[in-house]
This record gives sequence, C-alpha cells and structure tokens, in this order.
Amino acid sequence: MSYEPLHGTRVLDLTAVVVGPAATWRLGQYGAQIIKVESPGGDLMRGLGGLSPTGQHAGAYLHLNRGKRNICLDLKAPGASGVMERLVAWADVIVANMRPKALARLGLDPETVRAGHPGKIYCLLTGYGSDGPYGGFPTYDSVVQGAVGLPGLALERDGTPGYVPLLICDHVVGEIAAGAILAALLNRHRTGKGVTLEVPMFETMATMVLQEHLAAQSFDPPAGPYGDQRLLSPHNRPMRTKDGFIAVTINTDPQVRAFLAATGRGHLATDPRFASVAARAVHVAEWFEIRGAPLTDRTTDEWLKIFRTADLAAMPVHSIESLSRDPHLTAVQLMTQEDHPTEGRTTVLRSSIRADDAPLPPRGPAAPRGWDTRAVLDELGYTGAEAAALLDRGVAVAHSSAPDRT
Amino acid sequence: MSYEPLHGTRVLDLTAVVVGPAATWRLGQYGAQIIKVESPGGDLMRGLGGLSPTGQHAGAYLHLNRGKRNICLDLKAPGASGVMERLVAWADVIVANMRPKALARLGLDPETVRAGHPGKIYCLLTGYGSDGPYGGFPTYDSVVQGAVGLPGLALERDGTPGYVPLLICDHVVGEIAAGAILAALLNRHRTGKGVTLEVPMFETMATMVLQEHLAAQSFDPPAGPYGDQRLLSPHNRPMRTKDGFIAVTINTDPQVRAFLAATGRGHLATDPRFASVAARAVHVAEWFEIRGAPLTDRTTDEWLKIFRTADLAAMPVHSIESLSRDPHLTAVQLMTQEDHPTEGRTTVLRSSIRADDAPLPPRGPAAPRGWDTRAVLDELGYTGAEAAALLDRGVAVAHSSAPDRT
Repeated sequence: MSYEPLHGTRVLDLTAVVVGPAATWRLGQYGAQIIKVESPGGDLMRGLGGLSPTGQHAGAYLHLNRGKRNICLDLKAPGASGVMERLVAWADVIVANMRPKALARLGLDPETVRAGHPGKIYCLLTGYGSDGPYGGFPTYDSVVQGAVGLPGLALERDGTPGYVPLLICDHVVGEIAAGAILAALLNRHRTGKGVTLEVPMFETMATMVLQEHLAAQSFDPPAGPYGDQRLLSPHNRPMRTKDGFIAVTINTDPQVRAFLAATGRGHLATDPRFASVAARAVHVAEWFEIRGAPLTDRTTDEWLKIFRTADLAAMPVHSIESLSRDPHLTAVQLMTQEDHPTEGRTTVLRSSIRADDAPLPPRGPAAPRGWDTRAVLDELGYTGAEAAALLDRGVAVAHSSAPDRT
Repeated sequence: MSYEPLHGTRVLDLTAVVVGPAATWRLGQYGAQIIKVESPGGDLMRGLGGLSPTGQHAGAYLHLNRGKRNICLDLKAPGASGVMERLVAWADVIVANMRPKALARLGLDPETVRAGHPGKIYCLLTGYGSDGPYGGFPTYDSVVQGAVGLPGLALERDGTPGYVPLLICDHVVGEIAAGAILAALLNRHRTGKGVTLEVPMFETMATMVLQEHLAAQSFDPPAGPYGDQRLLSPHNRPMRTKDGFIAVTINTDPQVRAFLAATGRGHLATDPRFASVAARAVHVAEWFEIRGAPLTDRTTDEWLKIFRTADLAAMPVHSIESLSRDPHLTAVQLMTQEDHPTEGRTTVLRSSIRADDAPLPPRGPAAPRGWDTRAVLDELGYTGAEAAALLDRGVAVAHSSAPDRT
C-alpha cells in the first residue's frame, strides 16, 4: 500500500507557470486527485525553460505537472462557467494564481466561490498581498528576488547584483502554499469549516530573508549592522581545488580544530580570535578569509577523503550534469524513466520524502493540454451529446491524441 | 477567534540550527503546542548569525524559534531518559535533525520511538537519505548548496561559483518537512496510523534544482543542453539604472512589446527572432542581451512608474535596509515590535499567510534556554521534589530569570 495522505482529496488547479504548479505538484505527491484547467492558449511554462520533442513539455513543465489530469477550457467562452461550476462543486480545494481582477471577471475569485461554497478551501497565490499598496501588481520570480533583497545581498557580497540561478521564490512559495492547504484540510477536520487563504510571494520571501538578515537590527537599539555577516563575507564561497571547487562548512569549535589541522594550519586553532563561536563572530572577516583560502594543492576527491575522515561536512561543487550522475542520487533512484504520452522516453523526478522507508510514488506523467477533457466532462455528468456540443463550440478542447474515454 | 489548524497538536522538537527550527516554527504559526528540548551547551544558532544584547538570541534564532516552549535537558545524563519518555508519550509529532547515530545512542531514533509508540508521527531531517551511500554524512546549508549545483550554476553564468546569500536549503527543506508533517497528521486522521518520515536535504534540493535545470536533458534522446538557458544567461540580472538597480521580467508576447516600446526599442518587436515565446527560446542569448541592457538614462523610481503604467512586473533591487522600510511591508505590518524576556525591544516577524483576510498570529517570542523547564516538568507530572532533584543533578536546567511556575 502506497502512502497517500490526501487519498480522496480533490484539488481544482487554476494555476500556471511555476508557483501554483509547484504547490499542486506537492499535493499530488501526497495522493490528491488534481484536475488542472488550462486555457487553449496554454500554460506559458510549456514552452519556457527549454526545448522538448513536441515543444509542449519543456523540462520544468514536465516535472512540475506530474500527477494532474488536464482539462482544456476557454474560460471566456459562453458556456464555460457551467463547467466551472461543476468543477468547483467537485473540489475540496481550489488553488489559483491568476491575478485577482482576472478571477473576479470570471466569477472565480475567492469571495464569489466561497459565498456559494463556504466549506471549500480556496488558496490564492498572489505576487503581493491584496491588503497592501502593491496588491494586484504583476510579478515573476526574479522580480520578487529583486524586491526581497537577494540580488542586493549578492551586490553587497560580490560587488555585483546576481539573481539566484533558480526560480527560488516560485518553488518556495509553492511549497509553503501546499503546506497552508494541508493545514487548512486539518482545520476543516477539526472545525468543519472552509477557509480562504492568501499566500503573497513578496511577503512570504521577505519573511524568510528577514528572518536571517534582519540580524542585529532585530533589536532596539540595534546590536549591529543588517545582514548575517558570515553569509556576506566575500570569502564565503566554495574553495578552489587542484581540479575544481569544493564546498566545506565548519561551525563548531571541534570542526574548526579538525579543519585547521586537516589543512595544515593547526597553529591557528589556539588563536584567541578563532577559538570559539563567539570569538569568530566578532572576527568574522578575518576568519572567513582563512576558511575560504584556496585548497589548490590537492584535488576535490583527495580533499573529500580527508574532510570526510575528519567527519567534516564537505561535498564537491556539482554542475547539473555531474549532479544528475551523483552516486548517491543514483543509488536512491531519485530519477527514473518512463514513456510520456507524446514526448517519448523522459526522466521522472520523484519527491524526496520517504514514509516508513519507502519513497512517495512519483504519480503519473504531466498531461498534454486537454488530455483528460473528455474523461473529466464525463465524470462531471455531461452526456456524450452535451460534451460534444462543448467541444464543437470550442468551450472545451480535447487533445487530438487523447484516448476517447466517453 | 484566531485561525489555529494545529490547535491541540503537540510537537516535541529535538532540532537545532536552522532546518529543524524552520519546520517547527511553521507548525507553531499554525497553532501547534511545541516543546523544544535544548542541551545545556545550547543551540549553536543562538550565537551564530549576528549579535544580540545578551549574546543568546541572534536574529535568526530569535525569528525561527517563536511559538516554542523550551526545556533544557542534558540528554546524556543518567535520568534524562525518563523525562524524554514522558515527553515522547506527550507528543503527537516528534521532529529531529540530529544525526541518526546520535539519536540511536539516546534511544530516540525513529525505530526505537515508534516500536514503543506506533501511532506517533516521527519526522527525521537528514543531510543525505539514510538509504544511500552518503547516509549519515554531516552537512550544512552551504555544503548542500554546493552538492545540488547552486554555485555550479552561478559558475556557468558568472564565471565564478557563489552561494545563494541565504540559508536557502535549510529554509526550504524545513518548510517541506512542515508540509510532510501536516500531511502525516491528515493521514493519521484518515487511517489512524502513525508514520516515520525522512526528509533528506540533499535529495530534496536536488529534486527542486533538477525540476528546473534538467531541462532539455529530461528527454531521451536529449532535446538540448542541461540547464534553463534563460536563467543561465549572463544578461539575466537586474538592470542598472541612473541611481541603482531594477528587477524587470517579461515573458509573454504582449509584455515583450510593452517593454520594448517603453524602453524606446519598439522596432525590435517585429523582429522575427523575438516575436514569440518559441522564437525567443531559440534566440535566447541575443534576446537576453537586449532585455538585460542598462537603463541608465532614468532613475529606478522613474522606470518603476513607466513599467507599472505598462502593467509590467518591476521592483527596485532592495537592500536589507530598504526592504525593512518597504512601504508595502509597512502597510501590511509584516514586522511589529515586542518586549523579549531577556533581549529588550525586538522585532516580530510573522508568517505571511492570511486566512479569511487576517494574518496568522505571530505566537510568542523565542524562549531563552530552559525558560520553561520547571513548567514543563510540572506538566509532565513531576512533583516539586522530583523536579528539584532533576535540577540539582543537572539533568534538567532552568533559566535563572524564568518565572517559577511550580
């Protein structure tokens, strides 16, 4: 028996691009039944982020949309609202990351939906909280990164502002939204009540950044400058080895002694500037210069053996290519392969979580647009003739290769 | 009535540093009752990451440990195991991020705990999955960053490997673990069963990175190179303005046309290389050079007005200081102030999530080490004399300023 905490929970997915799909992907890994509604124009992410054989399932789309059925509807067409009413009635949870005004035009905003269905859980993902002056502004991951200070921190450390090379705000806020939905389901168990959740990207990432980097300015009067000075040291970077880069971190006093001994600088271990956590916090700049010094007299593999023997935390600096071949990931089979309905042989990425020693099942492949249109209309109670009329009028669109399940 | 989905849920928190405290912080925001067990040596994070008036509540510690009571126990002392047995019996959920061998020595590993209490939920946070060859290796955030390719991606983009200037792996894995615990509570509602969860940092972050950057190598045969080429463009960075930097992102065709018009390059909108998502994906290098070109003829504020009028996603590149004064964050009161028991006036950072239009309450301040030792021993059924004996023998330690609640 696979572990399916959300077995029987129904999620109506009105999301696109990354933050919403990341949230519903996580719910799918827990066994939720998900129906994703996609416009005939399609989720922008199908084509962004790289090529695929048909041009319709770029890697990020492929991996973030596992475990979801797909109905293609033209929400602006007369007649679509009837289908949406049945989908809303079907769902326990509605997730949307459209802008609030667009949802309101369609009658799919949280107020309208919960007025008719107070027991539903509605999770709205926004760029900026609708209770503040930026409410309703459009956004994307990198704009949130800029707003919450990630390139600003890089500017302080490196002298030039760089984005995190990952859609990190989308991913993180998606995960937090998935958690908020899980909590709301528990709340419904406890109280019988639905809820409207709003998870704003800007505030969510700002909290995360400020938790770390408000630092000594968390006190009144301030105890020191803004920013975790360890992370902002220009020496806080992977060390160069003879043949690449290595990531090593040392925090406790025994680790510091072991690291200095392993790198031939044991005499520094008794230097009062570096002998304790508190002393190193005061002398952070000098300390980071020492611990970040190049290690070019040995290869990465040689250093890994030495540091691991000393029980220090160390790993090679992987490229995406070497990461995909990492022996640990290979052993735990994080990646497997399957045949996708339209893209041929593809990689399957599963959730990393293990429950009672077994990984969560990866669920089914990302569906082509409209793959389940006919099946979902059937499940919603439309007769064959009614479904055919919706398809004829372009209210609903079915994928040309999808199995005809009606 | 505040929204408390985890009202009545009891969490035994055996975590330290960041990843575990981030997970239990989130559960606390949902109203869980949390007891954090801290060693007399203390959570390393109290002193890392910046100064505080007493040296005991550096900013990150302060913010990530809200909403938790604190009992200080010397787990290695004879007699501590009896207290731990009562704490385990008290809890619905046990969360730990000690290394598996250290937990086993204390009889607090998942196998031992769940053999005696099969209905409990035990969440173990590890660096590397215990089912793979790196199982048991020590780790820290930056080492995981190196292992999953974050500085490797920066190396490819910038020519030099840089860490994300945030303990991003700790934060993200903490949030995902909180979600996994919420799902396990739902599973217990549905099936009556407990579960042992393992959330390994390396695999969890590897999945997130590979979801985006396996990209065209997700297909067999590959459809192109590793990596989302948009994110890896050296031109994918905030644009310099007359007085700072601005973050702007454009993805759809209408956004591209509006951006080119707003920046005086409208003639490029009809260039077939840039006229569609698909065309820009093919000509990604040239396109990113155009969209990343400096905007030094106007100030950041001037550009923000122009881009917002055009309904484009744009924000200033904040420093931590300017972020903490952002008008939107001020309006939504993300930060408030309170008196901390030992640190004086401090900033309160709440969760960003809103439920039925109200923010989640921020819960109580981070407790000094041993602040609740006496109260918790009392709650666990120890008599005054028994508690005094535990304190005399150094099995339990109470904070000197804590209220005597026995």
